[in-house]
Amino acid sequence: MPSGGLQNGRGYQKIKRKKQPVSQPPLFNETFYRELRLLLEWRRDVRRFWTDPLPNGLVEELVALASLAPSVGYSQPCRFVRVDDPERRASVIESYQRANRAALASYQGADADLYSRLKLAGLRESPVHLAVFCDRTTSTSKGLGRQTMPQTLQYSVVMAICILWIAARARGVGVGWVSILEPEMVTRALEFPNRGSSSAIFA
Amino acid sequence: MPSGGLQNGRGYQKIKRKKQPVSQPPLFNETFYRELRLLLEWRRDVRRFWTDPLPNGLVEELVALASLAPSVGYSQPCRFVRVDDPERRASVIESYQRANRAALASYQGADADLYSRLKLAGLRESPVHLAVFCDRTTSTSKGLGRQTMPQTLQYSVVMAICILWIAARARGVGVGWVSILEPEMVTRALEFPNRGSSSAIFA
Repeated sequence: MPSGGLQNGRGYQKIKRKKQPVSQPPLFNETFYRELRLLLEWRRDVRRFWTDPLPNGLVEELVALASLAPSVGYSQPCRFVRVDDPERRASVIESYQRANRAALASYQGADADLYSRLKLAGLRESPVHLAVFCDRTTSTSKGLGRQTMPQTLQYSVVMAICILWIAARARGVGVGWVSILEPEMVTRALEFPNRGSSSAIFA
Repeated sequence: MPSGGLQNGRGYQKIKRKKQPVSQPPLFNETFYRELRLLLEWRRDVRRFWTDPLPNGLVEELVALASLAPSVGYSQPCRFVRVDDPERRASVIESYQRANRAALASYQGADADLYSRLKLAGLRESPVHLAVFCDRTTSTSKGLGRQTMPQTLQYSVVMAICILWIAARARGVGVGWVSILEPEMVTRALEFPNRGSSSAIFA
Protein backbone atom coordinates (compact mmCIF):
# COMPACT_ATOMS: atom_id res chain seq x y z
CA MET A 1 0.00 0.00 0.00
CA PRO A 2 1.15 3.55 -0.58
CA SER A 3 2.63 5.11 2.47
CA GLY A 4 3.98 8.53 3.14
CA GLY A 5 6.52 9.07 5.83
CA LEU A 6 6.05 12.00 8.17
CA GLN A 7 9.25 12.53 10.04
CA ASN A 8 9.52 14.78 13.04
CA GLY A 9 12.97 15.25 14.44
CA ARG A 10 14.40 11.74 14.49
CA GLY A 11 11.21 9.76 14.82
CA TYR A 12 9.87 8.34 11.60
CA GLN A 13 6.24 7.52 11.28
CA LYS A 14 4.76 5.53 8.43
CA ILE A 15 1.22 6.34 7.48
CA LYS A 16 -0.66 3.22 6.42
CA ARG A 17 -3.81 3.36 4.38
CA LYS A 18 -6.65 0.89 4.67
CA LYS A 19 -6.98 -1.58 1.86
CA GLN A 20 -9.86 -0.60 -0.38
CA PRO A 21 -12.43 -3.25 -1.22
CA VAL A 22 -12.67 -3.70 -4.98
CA SER A 23 -15.87 -2.09 -6.14
CA GLN A 24 -17.27 0.02 -8.97
CA PRO A 25 -15.35 3.22 -9.54
CA PRO A 26 -17.35 6.26 -8.49
CA LEU A 27 -18.73 8.76 -10.99
CA PHE A 28 -18.21 12.43 -10.32
CA ASN A 29 -21.01 14.79 -11.18
CA GLU A 30 -21.10 18.28 -12.66
CA THR A 31 -21.44 19.95 -9.25
CA PHE A 32 -18.27 18.31 -7.98
CA TYR A 33 -16.43 19.14 -11.20
CA ARG A 34 -17.39 22.80 -10.94
CA GLU A 35 -16.15 22.92 -7.36
CA LEU A 36 -12.93 21.18 -8.36
CA ARG A 37 -12.39 23.84 -11.01
CA LEU A 38 -13.05 26.55 -8.42
CA LEU A 39 -10.50 24.92 -6.12
CA LEU A 40 -7.88 24.89 -8.88
CA GLU A 41 -8.65 28.50 -9.75
CA TRP A 42 -8.28 29.62 -6.15
CA ARG A 43 -5.14 27.73 -5.32
CA ARG A 44 -2.40 30.22 -4.62
CA ASP A 45 1.29 30.25 -3.84
CA VAL A 46 0.85 31.74 -0.38
CA ARG A 47 3.48 34.01 1.16
CA ARG A 48 1.55 35.69 3.97
CA PHE A 49 0.48 33.36 6.73
CA TRP A 50 -1.48 33.50 9.94
CA THR A 51 0.71 32.25 12.75
CA ASP A 52 -2.05 30.20 14.43
CA PRO A 53 -1.19 26.52 14.72
CA LEU A 54 -3.04 24.13 12.43
CA PRO A 55 -5.67 21.80 13.92
CA ASN A 56 -4.25 18.60 15.37
CA GLY A 57 -3.85 15.86 12.80
CA LEU A 58 -4.39 18.07 9.76
CA VAL A 59 -0.82 17.86 8.51
CA GLU A 60 -0.90 14.06 8.82
CA GLU A 61 -4.21 13.97 6.95
CA LEU A 62 -2.80 16.07 4.10
CA VAL A 63 0.33 13.92 3.92
CA ALA A 64 -1.87 10.82 3.70
CA LEU A 65 -3.74 12.36 0.74
CA ALA A 66 -0.47 13.40 -0.90
CA SER A 67 0.62 9.77 -0.62
CA LEU A 68 -2.17 8.87 -3.06
CA ALA A 69 -0.28 10.74 -5.78
CA PRO A 70 0.98 8.82 -8.81
CA SER A 71 4.56 7.57 -8.54
CA VAL A 72 6.65 6.05 -11.27
CA GLY A 73 6.54 2.24 -11.12
CA TYR A 74 4.77 2.67 -7.76
CA SER A 75 8.08 3.74 -6.28
CA GLN A 76 6.59 6.13 -3.68
CA PRO A 77 9.79 8.05 -3.03
CA CYS A 78 8.22 11.02 -1.26
CA ARG A 79 9.30 11.76 2.32
CA PHE A 80 7.85 14.61 4.32
CA VAL A 81 9.76 16.10 7.20
CA ARG A 82 7.95 18.42 9.56
CA VAL A 83 10.38 20.98 10.93
CA ASP A 84 9.30 22.09 14.41
CA ASP A 85 12.65 22.51 16.15
CA PRO A 86 13.36 26.27 16.35
CA GLU A 87 17.05 25.85 15.52
CA ARG A 88 16.27 23.83 12.43
CA ARG A 89 13.61 26.30 11.35
CA ALA A 90 16.22 29.04 11.74
CA SER A 91 18.73 27.08 9.59
CA VAL A 92 16.17 26.80 6.82
CA ILE A 93 15.39 30.51 6.98
CA GLU A 94 19.12 31.34 6.83
CA SER A 95 19.50 29.11 3.80
CA TYR A 96 16.62 30.94 2.14
CA GLN A 97 18.17 34.32 2.93
CA ARG A 98 21.56 33.35 1.46
CA ALA A 99 19.98 31.92 -1.68
CA ASN A 100 17.74 34.95 -2.03
CA ARG A 101 20.65 37.38 -1.74
CA ALA A 102 22.53 35.45 -4.41
CA ALA A 103 19.51 35.47 -6.70
CA LEU A 104 18.95 39.19 -6.11
CA ALA A 105 22.56 39.94 -7.09
CA SER A 106 21.93 38.51 -10.54
CA TYR A 107 19.22 41.04 -11.44
CA GLN A 108 19.94 44.54 -12.70
CA GLY A 109 18.19 47.90 -12.74
CA ALA A 110 14.40 47.85 -12.66
CA ASP A 111 14.33 44.06 -12.38
CA ALA A 112 16.55 44.20 -9.29
CA ASP A 113 14.29 46.81 -7.74
CA LEU A 114 11.18 44.75 -8.46
CA TYR A 115 12.78 41.54 -7.23
CA SER A 116 13.91 43.13 -3.96
CA ARG A 117 10.35 44.23 -3.22
CA LEU A 118 8.78 40.84 -3.82
CA LYS A 119 7.96 39.01 -0.64
CA LEU A 120 9.15 35.57 -1.54
CA ALA A 121 8.68 33.51 1.55
CA GLY A 122 6.54 33.30 4.64
CA LEU A 123 8.97 31.07 6.49
CA ARG A 124 8.92 33.15 9.68
CA GLU A 125 5.15 33.44 10.06
CA SER A 126 3.99 30.07 8.81
CA PRO A 127 3.14 27.68 11.67
CA VAL A 128 4.30 24.62 9.73
CA HIS A 129 7.45 23.98 7.74
CA LEU A 130 7.27 20.80 5.70
CA ALA A 131 10.44 19.75 3.93
CA VAL A 132 9.95 17.31 1.10
CA PHE A 133 12.61 14.84 0.06
CA CYS A 134 12.97 12.29 -2.68
CA ASP A 135 14.19 8.94 -1.34
CA ARG A 136 16.38 7.49 -4.09
CA THR A 137 16.63 4.20 -2.21
CA THR A 138 12.88 3.63 -2.21
CA SER A 139 12.36 -0.11 -2.22
CA THR A 140 8.77 -0.45 -3.41
CA SER A 141 9.65 -0.78 -7.08
CA LYS A 142 12.53 -2.11 -9.09
CA GLY A 143 13.22 0.92 -11.19
CA LEU A 144 10.16 0.22 -13.30
CA GLY A 145 9.42 2.99 -15.77
CA ARG A 146 12.38 5.16 -14.91
CA GLN A 147 15.30 3.68 -16.79
CA THR A 148 14.99 5.98 -19.79
CA MET A 149 13.87 8.96 -17.71
CA PRO A 150 15.38 8.63 -14.20
CA GLN A 151 14.09 12.10 -13.32
CA THR A 152 10.61 10.57 -13.05
CA LEU A 153 11.48 9.63 -9.47
CA GLN A 154 11.77 13.32 -8.57
CA TYR A 155 8.65 13.98 -10.66
CA SER A 156 6.76 11.55 -8.42
CA VAL A 157 7.65 13.70 -5.42
CA VAL A 158 6.47 16.79 -7.25
CA MET A 159 3.09 15.19 -7.90
CA ALA A 160 2.70 14.39 -4.19
CA ILE A 161 3.45 18.04 -3.47
CA CYS A 162 0.85 19.11 -6.01
CA ILE A 163 -1.81 16.90 -4.41
CA LEU A 164 -0.94 18.15 -0.93
CA TRP A 165 -1.22 21.72 -2.18
CA ILE A 166 -4.74 21.41 -3.54
CA ALA A 167 -5.94 19.23 -0.64
CA ALA A 168 -4.68 21.90 1.79
CA ARG A 169 -6.54 24.59 -0.15
CA ALA A 170 -9.71 22.50 0.09
CA ARG A 171 -9.21 22.62 3.86
CA GLY A 172 -8.65 26.38 3.79
CA VAL A 173 -4.93 26.04 4.47
CA GLY A 174 -2.50 28.08 2.40
CA VAL A 175 0.69 26.57 1.02
CA GLY A 176 3.74 28.19 -0.48
CA TRP A 177 6.59 26.34 -2.15
CA VAL A 178 9.98 27.81 -1.29
CA SER A 179 12.49 26.81 -3.97
CA ILE A 180 14.94 29.59 -3.17
CA LEU A 181 17.00 27.33 -0.93
CA GLU A 182 20.27 25.45 -0.93
CA PRO A 183 19.10 21.83 -1.19
CA GLU A 184 22.30 20.27 0.25
CA MET A 185 22.38 22.69 3.14
CA VAL A 186 18.76 21.93 4.03
CA THR A 187 19.34 18.19 3.79
CA ARG A 188 22.20 18.53 6.29
CA ALA A 189 20.35 20.91 8.60
CA LEU A 190 17.43 18.51 8.86
CA GLU A 191 19.70 15.48 9.20
CA PHE A 192 17.90 13.70 6.42
CA PRO A 193 19.68 10.44 5.54
CA ASN A 194 22.15 10.84 2.74
CA ARG A 195 20.09 9.07 0.17
CA GLY A 196 17.68 11.74 -0.87
CA SER A 197 17.57 15.14 -2.40
CA SER A 198 15.39 17.84 -1.03
CA SER A 199 12.75 19.26 -3.30
CA ALA A 200 10.99 21.90 -1.35
CA ILE A 201 10.20 23.52 1.91
CA PHE A 202 6.59 24.25 2.47
CA ALA A 203 5.32 26.89 4.67
CA MET B 1 -2.94 35.17 -17.16
CA PRO B 2 -1.90 31.55 -17.26
CA SER B 3 -2.11 30.02 -20.68
CA GLY B 4 -1.50 26.53 -21.90
CA GLY B 5 -0.62 25.88 -25.47
CA LEU B 6 -2.34 23.04 -27.25
CA GLN B 7 -0.48 22.31 -30.40
CA ASN B 8 -1.80 20.13 -33.14
CA GLY B 9 0.57 19.49 -36.00
CA ARG B 10 2.07 22.87 -36.75
CA GLY B 11 -0.78 25.08 -35.58
CA TYR B 12 -0.34 26.54 -32.14
CA GLN B 13 -3.32 27.64 -30.16
CA LYS B 14 -3.10 29.65 -26.96
CA ILE B 15 -5.84 29.10 -24.44
CA LYS B 16 -6.72 32.33 -22.66
CA ARG B 17 -8.55 32.41 -19.38
CA LYS B 18 -10.96 35.13 -18.35
CA LYS B 19 -9.71 37.51 -15.71
CA GLN B 20 -11.31 36.69 -12.38
CA PRO B 21 -12.96 39.50 -10.49
CA VAL B 22 -11.41 39.87 -7.05
CA SER B 23 -13.80 38.46 -4.52
CA GLN B 24 -13.88 36.41 -1.35
CA PRO B 25 -12.16 33.05 -1.70
CA PRO B 26 -14.66 30.18 -1.63
CA LEU B 27 -14.89 27.76 1.25
CA PHE B 28 -15.03 24.07 0.50
CA ASN B 29 -17.27 21.91 2.62
CA GLU B 30 -16.90 18.42 4.01
CA THR B 31 -18.94 16.82 1.22
CA PHE B 32 -16.62 18.26 -1.42
CA TYR B 33 -13.56 17.24 0.55
CA ARG B 34 -14.79 13.65 0.85
CA GLU B 35 -15.40 13.51 -2.90
CA LEU B 36 -11.97 14.98 -3.55
CA ARG B 37 -10.44 12.23 -1.43
CA LEU B 38 -12.45 9.64 -3.36
CA LEU B 39 -11.17 11.13 -6.61
CA LEU B 40 -7.56 10.90 -5.42
CA GLU B 41 -8.11 7.34 -4.22
CA TRP B 42 -9.56 6.26 -7.53
CA ARG B 43 -7.06 7.94 -9.80
CA ARG B 44 -5.16 5.26 -11.68
CA ASP B 45 -2.29 4.96 -14.11
CA VAL B 46 -4.43 3.57 -16.91
CA ARG B 47 -3.03 1.13 -19.47
CA ARG B 48 -6.17 -0.34 -21.01
CA PHE B 49 -8.23 2.12 -22.97
CA TRP B 50 -11.47 2.18 -24.89
CA THR B 51 -10.77 3.31 -28.42
CA ASP B 52 -13.84 5.60 -28.64
CA PRO B 53 -12.94 9.21 -29.36
CA LEU B 54 -13.30 11.68 -26.51
CA PRO B 55 -16.15 14.23 -26.62
CA ASN B 56 -15.35 17.37 -28.62
CA GLY B 57 -13.58 20.02 -26.60
CA LEU B 58 -12.78 17.79 -23.63
CA VAL B 59 -9.03 17.72 -24.22
CA GLU B 60 -8.99 21.52 -24.53
CA GLU B 61 -10.99 21.81 -21.31
CA LEU B 62 -8.56 19.56 -19.44
CA VAL B 63 -5.57 21.47 -20.79
CA ALA B 64 -7.17 24.72 -19.60
CA LEU B 65 -7.53 23.27 -16.10
CA ALA B 66 -3.97 21.95 -16.17
CA SER B 67 -2.87 25.50 -16.99
CA LEU B 68 -4.10 26.55 -13.54
CA ALA B 69 -1.29 24.49 -12.00
CA PRO B 70 1.37 26.26 -9.97
CA SER B 71 4.50 27.22 -11.91
CA VAL B 72 7.74 28.53 -10.52
CA GLY B 73 7.85 32.32 -10.68
CA TYR B 74 4.68 32.11 -12.79
CA SER B 75 6.81 30.82 -15.64
CA GLN B 76 4.10 28.62 -17.19
CA PRO B 77 6.46 26.47 -19.23
CA CYS B 78 4.04 23.64 -20.00
CA ARG B 79 3.23 22.91 -23.64
CA PHE B 80 0.79 20.21 -24.66
CA VAL B 81 0.99 18.65 -28.09
CA ARG B 82 -1.88 16.50 -29.29
CA VAL B 83 -0.58 13.81 -31.58
CA ASP B 84 -3.24 12.85 -34.13
CA ASP B 85 -1.16 12.21 -37.22
CA PRO B 86 -0.92 8.40 -37.69
CA GLU B 87 2.74 8.52 -38.70
CA ARG B 88 3.68 10.53 -35.63
CA ARG B 89 1.66 8.25 -33.38
CA ALA B 90 3.56 5.35 -34.92
CA SER B 91 6.91 7.07 -34.25
CA VAL B 92 6.00 7.49 -30.60
CA ILE B 93 4.98 3.84 -30.31
CA GLU B 94 8.25 2.74 -31.92
CA SER B 95 10.19 4.87 -29.45
CA TYR B 96 8.31 3.23 -26.61
CA GLN B 97 9.05 -0.23 -27.98
CA ARG B 98 12.78 0.44 -28.29
CA ALA B 99 12.98 1.94 -24.80
CA ASN B 100 10.96 -0.92 -23.38
CA ARG B 101 13.20 -3.56 -24.97
CA ALA B 102 16.26 -1.82 -23.55
CA ALA B 103 14.68 -1.66 -20.09
CA LEU B 104 13.65 -5.32 -20.29
CA ALA B 105 17.21 -6.36 -21.09
CA SER B 106 18.39 -4.95 -17.76
CA TYR B 107 16.24 -7.27 -15.65
CA GLN B 108 17.20 -10.85 -14.85
CA GLY B 109 15.43 -14.06 -13.95
CA ALA B 110 12.06 -13.74 -12.23
CA ASP B 111 12.14 -9.97 -12.49
CA ALA B 112 12.65 -10.19 -16.26
CA ASP B 113 9.74 -12.60 -16.51
CA LEU B 114 7.49 -10.33 -14.46
CA TYR B 115 8.56 -7.23 -16.34
CA SER B 116 7.88 -8.81 -19.73
CA ARG B 117 4.34 -9.64 -18.67
CA LEU B 118 3.49 -6.17 -17.46
CA LYS B 119 1.42 -4.23 -19.92
CA LEU B 120 3.15 -0.90 -19.75
CA ALA B 121 1.42 1.25 -22.27
CA GLY B 122 -1.91 1.70 -23.99
CA LEU B 123 -0.48 3.75 -26.81
CA ARG B 124 -2.18 1.77 -29.55
CA GLU B 125 -5.69 1.76 -28.12
CA SER B 126 -5.87 5.17 -26.55
CA PRO B 127 -7.79 7.67 -28.71
CA VAL B 128 -5.62 10.60 -27.59
CA HIS B 129 -1.86 10.98 -27.32
CA LEU B 130 -0.82 14.12 -25.51
CA ALA B 131 2.87 14.89 -25.47
CA VAL B 132 3.96 17.31 -22.79
CA PHE B 133 6.98 19.56 -23.18
CA CYS B 134 8.77 22.01 -20.98
CA ASP B 135 9.48 25.29 -22.80
CA ARG B 136 12.80 26.50 -21.44
CA THR B 137 12.38 29.81 -23.29
CA THR B 138 9.13 30.68 -21.53
CA SER B 139 8.96 34.44 -21.34
CA THR B 140 6.37 35.00 -18.61
CA SER B 141 8.89 35.19 -15.78
CA LYS B 142 12.48 36.29 -15.39
CA GLY B 143 13.83 33.17 -13.82
CA LEU B 144 12.19 34.06 -10.52
CA GLY B 145 12.51 31.30 -7.95
CA ARG B 146 14.55 28.93 -10.05
CA GLN B 147 18.11 30.17 -9.81
CA THR B 148 19.06 27.84 -6.97
CA MET B 149 16.88 24.99 -8.23
CA PRO B 150 16.58 25.26 -12.03
CA GLN B 151 14.77 21.93 -12.13
CA THR B 152 11.69 23.70 -10.75
CA LEU B 153 10.85 24.65 -14.36
CA GLN B 154 10.41 20.96 -15.19
CA TYR B 155 8.60 20.49 -11.88
CA SER B 156 6.06 23.10 -12.99
CA VAL B 157 5.28 20.96 -16.01
CA VAL B 158 4.88 17.92 -13.78
CA MET B 159 2.32 19.76 -11.65
CA ALA B 160 0.31 20.66 -14.74
CA ILE B 161 0.35 16.98 -15.67
CA CYS B 162 -0.83 16.06 -12.18
CA ILE B 163 -3.76 18.49 -12.37
CA LEU B 164 -4.73 17.23 -15.83
CA TRP B 165 -4.64 13.69 -14.53
CA ILE B 166 -7.08 14.22 -11.67
CA ALA B 167 -9.34 16.54 -13.71
CA ALA B 168 -9.57 13.84 -16.39
CA ARG B 169 -10.50 11.26 -13.76
CA ALA B 170 -13.23 13.59 -12.51
CA ARG B 171 -14.59 13.51 -16.08
CA GLY B 172 -14.34 9.71 -16.18
CA VAL B 173 -11.37 9.77 -18.55
CA GLY B 174 -8.41 7.52 -17.84
CA VAL B 175 -4.85 8.77 -18.17
CA GLY B 176 -1.58 6.89 -18.26
CA TRP B 177 1.86 8.50 -18.16
CA VAL B 178 4.32 6.79 -20.49
CA SER B 179 7.85 7.55 -19.35
CA ILE B 180 9.44 4.63 -21.16
CA LEU B 181 10.35 6.74 -24.15
CA GLU B 182 13.36 8.39 -25.74
CA PRO B 183 12.73 12.08 -25.03
CA GLU B 184 14.97 13.41 -27.82
CA MET B 185 13.51 11.04 -30.37
CA VAL B 186 9.97 12.08 -29.45
CA THR B 187 10.86 15.77 -29.59
CA ARG B 188 12.17 15.25 -33.13
CA ALA B 189 9.28 13.07 -34.27
CA LEU B 190 6.78 15.68 -33.15
CA GLU B 191 8.83 18.55 -34.60
CA PHE B 192 8.71 20.43 -31.33
CA PRO B 193 10.93 23.54 -31.46
CA ASN B 194 14.40 22.89 -30.14
CA ARG B 195 13.94 24.75 -26.91
CA GLY B 196 12.07 22.26 -24.85
CA SER B 197 12.45 18.84 -23.38
CA SER B 198 9.70 16.32 -23.50
CA SER B 199 8.34 15.07 -20.24
CA ALA B 200 5.70 12.61 -21.06
CA ILE B 201 3.35 11.12 -23.52
CA PHE B 202 -0.15 10.67 -22.31
CA ALA B 203 -2.54 8.17 -23.60
